[in-house]
Amino acid sequence: MVRHMSMDDVNQSPSEPRDDGAYTLDRKDISAILYAVEIEDKAKLTQLMDPLHAADIADLLEQINAFDRSRLIRLYDRDFDGEILSELDDSIREEVIAVLTPQVLAEAVRDLDSDDVVDLVEDLDEPQQEAILDALEDVDRAAVEQSLSYPEFSAGRLMQREVVMAPEHWNVGEAIDHLRNAKEDDLPDQFYHIVVVDPRLHPVGNVTLGKLMRSRREVKLTDIIEDVFQVIPVDQDEGDVAYAFNQYHLISAPVVDSEGRLIGIITIDDAMAVLDEEHEEDILRLAGVGEGSLSDRVIDTTKRRMPWLAVNLATSIAASMVIAQFEAAITQIVALAVLMPIVASMGGNAGTQSLTVAVRAIATKDLTGANVWRVIRREVMVGLVNGLIFAVVMGIVGVVWFGSPALGYVIAAAMVVNMVVAGLAGTVIPVILERVGVDPALASGAFVTTVTDVVGFFAFLGLAAMVLL
Amino acid sequence: MVRHMSMDDVNQSPSEPRDDGAYTLDRKDISAILYAVEIEDKAKLTQLMDPLHAADIADLLEQINAFDRSRLIRLYDRDFDGEILSELDDSIREEVIAVLTPQVLAEAVRDLDSDDVVDLVEDLDEPQQEAILDALEDVDRAAVEQSLSYPEFSAGRLMQREVVMAPEHWNVGEAIDHLRNAKEDDLPDQFYHIVVVDPRLHPVGNVTLGKLMRSRREVKLTDIIEDVFQVIPVDQDEGDVAYAFNQYHLISAPVVDSEGRLIGIITIDDAMAVLDEEHEEDILRLAGVGEGSLSDRVIDTTKRRMPWLAVNLATSIAASMVIAQFEAAITQIVALAVLMPIVASMGGNAGTQSLTVAVRAIATKDLTGANVWRVIRREVMVGLVNGLIFAVVMGIVGVVWFGSPALGYVIAAAMVVNMVVAGLAGTVIPVILERVGVDPALASGAFVTTVTDVVGFFAFLGLAAMVLL
Repeated sequence: MVRHMSMDDVNQSPSEPRDDGAYTLDRKDISAILYAVEIEDKAKLTQLMDPLHAADIADLLEQINAFDRSRLIRLYDRDFDGEILSELDDSIREEVIAVLTPQVLAEAVRDLDSDDVVDLVEDLDEPQQEAILDALEDVDRAAVEQSLSYPEFSAGRLMQREVVMAPEHWNVGEAIDHLRNAKEDDLPDQFYHIVVVDPRLHPVGNVTLGKLMRSRREVKLTDIIEDVFQVIPVDQDEGDVAYAFNQYHLISAPVVDSEGRLIGIITIDDAMAVLDEEHEEDILRLAGVGEGSLSDRVIDTTKRRMPWLAVNLATSIAASMVIAQFEAAITQIVALAVLMPIVASMGGNAGTQSLTVAVRAIATKDLTGANVWRVIRREVMVGLVNGLIFAVVMGIVGVVWFGSPALGYVIAAAMVVNMVVAGLAGTVIPVILERVGVDPALASGAFVTTVTDVVGFFAFLGLAAMVLL
Repeated sequence: MVRHMSMDDVNQSPSEPRDDGAYTLDRKDISAILYAVEIEDKAKLTQLMDPLHAADIADLLEQINAFDRSRLIRLYDRDFDGEILSELDDSIREEVIAVLTPQVLAEAVRDLDSDDVVDLVEDLDEPQQEAILDALEDVDRAAVEQSLSYPEFSAGRLMQREVVMAPEHWNVGEAIDHLRNAKEDDLPDQFYHIVVVDPRLHPVGNVTLGKLMRSRREVKLTDIIEDVFQVIPVDQDEGDVAYAFNQYHLISAPVVDSEGRLIGIITIDDAMAVLDEEHEEDILRLAGVGEGSLSDRVIDTTKRRMPWLAVNLATSIAASMVIAQFEAAITQIVALAVLMPIVASMGGNAGTQSLTVAVRAIATKDLTGANVWRVIRREVMVGLVNGLIFAVVMGIVGVVWFGSPALGYVIAAAMVVNMVVAGLAGTVIPVILERVGVDPALASGAFVTTVTDVVGFFAFLGLAAMVLL
């Protein structure tokens, strides 16, 4: 079970290190919770759920079935925390909100920071969104609606509006006094830097709280600002924001409007969550799986996967048409039908290797105009060398299996051709897609395997028809 | 060009928001730098490189060729910063270290924090490792060697040893005085929390600097510790560390030894870098690409990709052997050879979809013992529904193309069978691999496509042999 120490635990025994590396809820914990739900033992349920972090409760809700989920939520009732909603998958979140009573929902969201509310409501249906916005106080509601006015997936949606700032002429003492006298509500829940701004509200640097505390009161803030400082435009794509945090090891970064004025701040935990989502998107898109979660309905998942399967059907029919051109050859030498999938499959695999490396390198900005030709040349060389090696192996297999050296040469030659083409297509296609503004993770796979299937069948069957007939 | 504000810039104009979202070095910048190298204009080079962040200089070095790289480093000389080394890919790092003069190298590493030095040296060859350790002062060298004694990819390698801690009986005033009086060397470069410990040095909670500054001097530290608190065992896998940071939105977490005593601290920026690496590993492993970078030599990349291609060759030969059982049928009805790759390919794609979802869900701990049966059932249902849809489509294609309703039924039936099997294999195989301790990202692909190839060919050709002959 995940250890989550609350204030009350502090004077008890300190948290022991866990003996395994896993953070999953174990089955016993889940069974105990479900049993408490079964016998409707509210006290027991509360006792079991209290030590859990909201993120773990969200995971628990995602992993049990819909019936248990609604019973659990009804029994848990007023203890239901807004943060659990923030942590839930979209599809489950909608279901949970529908189960919560209006009072519980209102109470749950009122405790959240404005950026969490934004994250919570942005994917909800209109009526559910309204229900939550109505539960907020006017000033919070205005802040949330302001954030929602920025484009989806932009820095504006990620930032929190509560910023700790100080004018550049202040010294350490003035900044400390300001912090100590500020009202609780005017400060973010957690903050690590003070943003120093000029008279036009343009950020000029960050001062860490550690440095602030350790400096004498008369030191000027501008004398202790951090070396590394990155300003984020409010309309910047969240993927680029995450990249900047990872690349420059930022902890927080000020967000500015189109005039360069400070309007919010993004912290690294939000950037980390975005990085995680972007990766999820890449990995699923490469496999032709749309977004979604394990808890989605079968029909939704089926619909999301269909387009990619339809594309694959079209491309494999195209490859079959190539085969159909060589029906006469296959009728004469049936070994061709036996061996042809090997050539196509090896090309497909080699192509997927090059493609994945290229897509990943584009995402991490390691594949750029400066090195694209070198990378293409390298992938083609890798394809050539591996092609030659496996050509020899397959040539031998062809001879041993079918007793025909000529068949061995043909399959070997086709293998080299297809693997060189695989290296080329696997790199060039994602680069071109990226240039024309299509996400290479989404579309490259279909193109590359079409190329390797068509070239594989054509090279093998075509060479066979020329050499063997 | 990436904006990186140094102290000297502060009194000049504040940084303007950049007009695009990209953080790549643009080609013009790279050209200007290479031109300065070409004409050996040291002053110009320094002027161009100075505003760049170490991470961007590292990217620049990775993207230019080896000849330019060594010329640039020689000209840049004493300005070469240790952080650039930290940011470089392993293969390029070794090359760069070999080019640096011993004095420049020594000076470069002496400025680094101990955890950065660990990160820097852990993948180096013995002689290069020695050269760097020799450059360190004795106390730093001891700290680095201590860290290197922890297993690779463990929390011990990630943590920094400089920790700000306070006994649990202290109040705010005592903590502040302690911080103000501490020597610069005894504190980490950046810190955001004070770790409160009991007399046995067991961590009991974090106090944020923000809360510390805003509290009255007589408040007890234990009264203002954070709600969320996670202790990391020193031998925990770094992937689990990254998961904990992402799951619980941690900013920093204390690391404890086997007795639960505080021995270091991990901060979120390091956890974010690990999360990024883990994702890279997953995405590359799913595609059968070993680790490595775009700047590796052709021969190294070829070697790394060969094992996966060899596995694929073996599995596609196995699939061919299935085809060989039906040579007689293919000789009579050559349309079978034309259509059979379609069934296998659709199964392979559907299997890869299920597999990718399962691998990702295992990595994010969303697929657990509690919901594994539900997920398997769901994937099979998705396979069945998509199978039925594409069976109808392919049945029609079969009839239209080859004019044979019976051929249409056969391909339709084989399609349904293979896509159901794909959903099943795509989920069950990664789950089993994970249970037996094999990384599902690494090995699932080969198993799943073998299953869908074999089942696809067998179902289609077998049914055809029964029905059509």
